Amino acid sequence: MIRLEHVLPADIEKTSFSIIRRECEEKHIVIPEDKAPVIVRCIHTTADFDYASTLCFSDGVLDKAADAIRRGAHIITDTTMAWSGINKKVLAGFGGEAHCFIADPEVAEKARQTGTTRAAVSMEKAAQMSVPLIFAIGNAPTALAALHDLIGRGFQPELIIGVPVGFVNVEASKELIMETEVPYIVNRGRKGGSNVAAAICNAILYGLARS
Amino acid sequence: MIRLEHVLPADIEKTSFSIIRRECEEKHIVIPEDKAPVIVRCIHTTADFDYASTLCFSDGVLDKAADAIRRGAHIITDTTMAWSGINKKVLAGFGGEAHCFIADPEVAEKARQTGTTRAAVSMEKAAQMSVPLIFAIGNAPTALAALHDLIGRGFQPELIIGVPVGFVNVEASKELIMETEVPYIVNRGRKGGSNVAAAICNAILYGLARS
Repeated sequence: MIRLEHVLPADIEKTSFSIIRRECEEKHIVIPEDKAPVIVRCIHTTADFDYASTLCFSDGVLDKAADAIRRGAHIITDTTMAWSGINKKVLAGFGGEAHCFIADPEVAEKARQTGTTRAAVSMEKAAQMSVPLIFAIGNAPTALAALHDLIGRGFQPELIIGVPVGFVNVEASKELIMETEVPYIVNRGRKGGSNVAAAICNAILYGLARS
Repeated sequence: MIRLEHVLPADIEKTSFSIIRRECEEKHIVIPEDKAPVIVRCIHTTADFDYASTLCFSDGVLDKAADAIRRGAHIITDTTMAWSGINKKVLAGFGGEAHCFIADPEVAEKARQTGTTRAAVSMEKAAQMSVPLIFAIGNAPTALAALHDLIGRGFQPELIIGVPVGFVNVEASKELIMETEVPYIVNRGRKGGSNVAAAICNAILYGLARS
């Protein structure tokens, strides 16, 4: 007979994190303590321990991300799914908001006219905002390529979370971002996703809310 | 120098699917043709070829799912992320709607009173609807356990997509669903997610829209 363990709703996440920590030890996976909240949450979101070895962090990125959020940074996503997964209540507590412009009719029209993706155009639109900006990209390599172009023209985001998933230009677009001077959290390789992008945002937000 | 391949926006998905098909062949992964749209889309959404061996389908489930959607079935999700990822325009073309009751204040209150999860209570709420129902569960094993209880009391969903992800009761809750008489698509093991739940819904919807 199949039995479910009795775990109180409030304890499910805590129990999951303990299991992940224990299994990492058993697998001899070493997770740097400062990056553990992000890495463990990505494993929690995917049940995929690969993230322990593929997530890449630029120097001091977590302090910089925390600082940006404390200054009221807004978060821009490339999909409504990533937008949907971000804890917007916690973000609002620091004065920030989350935005996704992918369904904006203007964005769709400009993408059609220029033969590019709506994701790319939605980055250009976001870059015009006059608040500190964090980008959380879980789907479209073309969004990362657009950000790379914008950075080349002087745009300075606070942080790029570069975790698109897929098979066409995904790996190259992540490498492009890691060549810039912009603080980044990137998942090297093909894996990632809107859920992973949201998980990374939430890991940073929850760390700040606790501190 | 990092170079991006030039792929037209409209061709990105097609190209990705071809790459997945080719790599499956190279890895000697055999994908049954009738299930390929679902399996390949799950791999596309996660860049994880494990889905080729862990996705489980009850007998004739894809025909039953297509039939339910043609009869105007509504889709119930356990997270707003999964809801967000479903192509609601295509679903509406068949007369269906997608719903997620997780943020419903009544659901939150009842979960608090009964010491259960909002996900579980949101299933009970959905089960009262008088339309054919498809459940797409990408996060909460407690949602699957609640559905199992409801089925035991006579509830008959058209289809359960059981792909929660995680470490506490996830595997057991999926096995519970596979013991019922209800048509299912389940990803055995720990992996899954809201993105995977939405991908499976969309694979079914796009297959119908093309036919």
